[in-house]
Amino acid sequence: MQMKSNHENPFSATRELGSEPEGTKGALAGVTVIDLTRYLSGPFCTMILGDLGAEVVKIEQPGKGDDARAIGPFVNGESMYFVSVNRNKKSVELDLHSPEGRQVLKDLCRSADVLVESFRPGTMEKWGLDYETLKSENPRLIYASLTGFGQTGPMREAPAYDIVVQAMSGIMSITGQEGGPPTRVGASIGDLIPGLFLTIGIVSALYEREYSGLGQRLDIAMLDCLVTILENAIARYMSTGVAPGPIGNRHPSIAPFDTFQAKDGYLIIAAANDSLFARLCTAIGTDELMQDERFRDNPSRSKNQSDLKNLLEQVLGQKPVSHWINVLMSAGVPCAPVLSIPEVVKHPQVLARGMVLELIQPLAGKVKVSGSPIKLSRTPPKVQKRAPLLGEHTGEVLQRLQSTD
Amino acid sequence: MQMKSNHENPFSATRELGSEPEGTKGALAGVTVIDLTRYLSGPFCTMILGDLGAEVVKIEQPGKGDDARAIGPFVNGESMYFVSVNRNKKSVELDLHSPEGRQVLKDLCRSADVLVESFRPGTMEKWGLDYETLKSENPRLIYASLTGFGQTGPMREAPAYDIVVQAMSGIMSITGQEGGPPTRVGASIGDLIPGLFLTIGIVSALYEREYSGLGQRLDIAMLDCLVTILENAIARYMSTGVAPGPIGNRHPSIAPFDTFQAKDGYLIIAAANDSLFARLCTAIGTDELMQDERFRDNPSRSKNQSDLKNLLEQVLGQKPVSHWINVLMSAGVPCAPVLSIPEVVKHPQVLARGMVLELIQPLAGKVKVSGSPIKLSRTPPKVQKRAPLLGEHTGEVLQRLQSTD
Repeated sequence: MQMKSNHENPFSATRELGSEPEGTKGALAGVTVIDLTRYLSGPFCTMILGDLGAEVVKIEQPGKGDDARAIGPFVNGESMYFVSVNRNKKSVELDLHSPEGRQVLKDLCRSADVLVESFRPGTMEKWGLDYETLKSENPRLIYASLTGFGQTGPMREAPAYDIVVQAMSGIMSITGQEGGPPTRVGASIGDLIPGLFLTIGIVSALYEREYSGLGQRLDIAMLDCLVTILENAIARYMSTGVAPGPIGNRHPSIAPFDTFQAKDGYLIIAAANDSLFARLCTAIGTDELMQDERFRDNPSRSKNQSDLKNLLEQVLGQKPVSHWINVLMSAGVPCAPVLSIPEVVKHPQVLARGMVLELIQPLAGKVKVSGSPIKLSRTPPKVQKRAPLLGEHTGEVLQRLQSTD
Repeated sequence: MQMKSNHENPFSATRELGSEPEGTKGALAGVTVIDLTRYLSGPFCTMILGDLGAEVVKIEQPGKGDDARAIGPFVNGESMYFVSVNRNKKSVELDLHSPEGRQVLKDLCRSADVLVESFRPGTMEKWGLDYETLKSENPRLIYASLTGFGQTGPMREAPAYDIVVQAMSGIMSITGQEGGPPTRVGASIGDLIPGLFLTIGIVSALYEREYSGLGQRLDIAMLDCLVTILENAIARYMSTGVAPGPIGNRHPSIAPFDTFQAKDGYLIIAAANDSLFARLCTAIGTDELMQDERFRDNPSRSKNQSDLKNLLEQVLGQKPVSHWINVLMSAGVPCAPVLSIPEVVKHPQVLARGMVLELIQPLAGKVKVSGSPIKLSRTPPKVQKRAPLLGEHTGEVLQRLQSTD
């Protein structure tokens, strides 16, 4: 709470819930989040809130915990799936199926800033933990719900996971090789992108509360969030009437912007405007393409991208990827090799940015996870705590409640 | 500024820059954003800020504007690529290559809350628009930079677009059919995910400023952001030593969680825990699989997912997708058809959530774009303005500067 002491905010709760962990001075220092979410989407959001300095109290089912604890890969029995998104959190075992457990949750929410939950619509209501009830005891509470389809609409009660919303949002229908089957994005963006929108909604509500003094309800649907990232595909369909399908690695309306075959592997070139296209042609010695009517501007190049690709690959195929990366980098043309995960985690730029961190877990030992990309100069995000064992902070957190009673 | 009037914040600038547009009362009402970004990533961020009620002043190169205006598809000469991410913004033509233009930008920043820029590192410094200079005139300014690789590290000056960071982050190496080539995600997540992290950083800095009274510098790198979403792939590689590759549509550590072939197309089933697996087996009449040692828990099912898939498809292949969706929905098993973009934009759930909006553009006429997924109860996001024509608000915005001089 230290960083807030210089500001007399009439709406700030005086939440002295015990000693804050040393050094918790991120942008969200002083914010307490009660986290009822499991698996990946909600926990990804609360990890970001924790990285930014919020105190995240993760409520877990006694004896079993977050379902993610049962999902591999495992190292010495500790789930790396769980560890990768649960650092900077405290774990409290609490049985929400019992009246006593629910009363403790209510007590926690009375002094909390944010509640995040991802149960199916109706579950929190059934437990008497609905927004209206909790708001009546703490009008400042921000009550954030994350579901597959939202709190409204005909499908509100349907269950969802990553691949369900990847399929239903249309993203699978536009991913994959041309003529091939619909393809799931290899990372769980059906969970992760909603986790990011959930975070934006929560922090925006925290900001707004500084002016209104009031919390509010946030209703995030995984499907909504994935529809949002279709932007260009919706625009394309609406303006042409043609259903977009998988088109391999090229961009639907920019060229050259694709994977190209070099002598020993794939190379990415992204020349998104006329000036970059000119630089590309000069750099690889194909100046004649700049005079070609088929390639005179981006719409023309995009229309004739297949011809252009063939002509470029006739040249690119003669030398290895590393040669072309050097040539194109010197010319200022956006380009890249296609890296594997082992290459990514040891890449000098990734390491220089602190994007690979080491946690020391009680069972698994040293574990590498990704860092935070939110580089704020005065209040940088910090990874201060490894992922918790189940119930590791039950005593500490519940004791505070007694001392404030 | 109305919603803030009930709060005496000692740090709030008294920014009465003229009449606010009617009804601008989102969570970020009263926040002014000066936006120097182009293409997709930065504009996606500032669109979200605008949806949340911030005033976004988009600075564009005179005569030419945002490069996105030259990227198709076009309707009556208006770029749908541009329209899809630039609603709720004002367009001001300003030549940053001229000393006069740069002075106007400085004047705008003196009374702004946020500056967002996506030039290569060094450009703003060269123009005398670096953070230290602007901060000296407005210590409350949040100065957010978005680049391919960040302000630090050996690759800081390299250019990047979506496909460059998709390739370098490893995401392409884990997307695609098993044994097939690395595959670009069909939506521009290399731009959109950094846009989301940029938004989180900006709003977090706005929140923190309520307590410190100070702005700060935000340094977002597209590559960092994509590394963050690898979570599970990094964990898998680190714990097994095996480089993850494309594995089609299945999940690396959950089964059954994949596309399955029904009689007339593909079906998604996501049974992520024992209880859902049991429900699935009962629903489709394969109770015997529950007794099978190969499928006794999620790690076993994941290890034997290929056998499991074959057995499930023997049953699923006998009836059409719609039959199985009904059966599985009734049983509460997460499932989905793989929808095309035309099916998505008319889906009852998508429409019920207000996720398809209509803008009326001056040249293109009625245009459909995606809505905002950040459903806040008291301060819902609003789409109040269509995408601007180039320079449409130059007079209005610059006039304000004169009236406050």
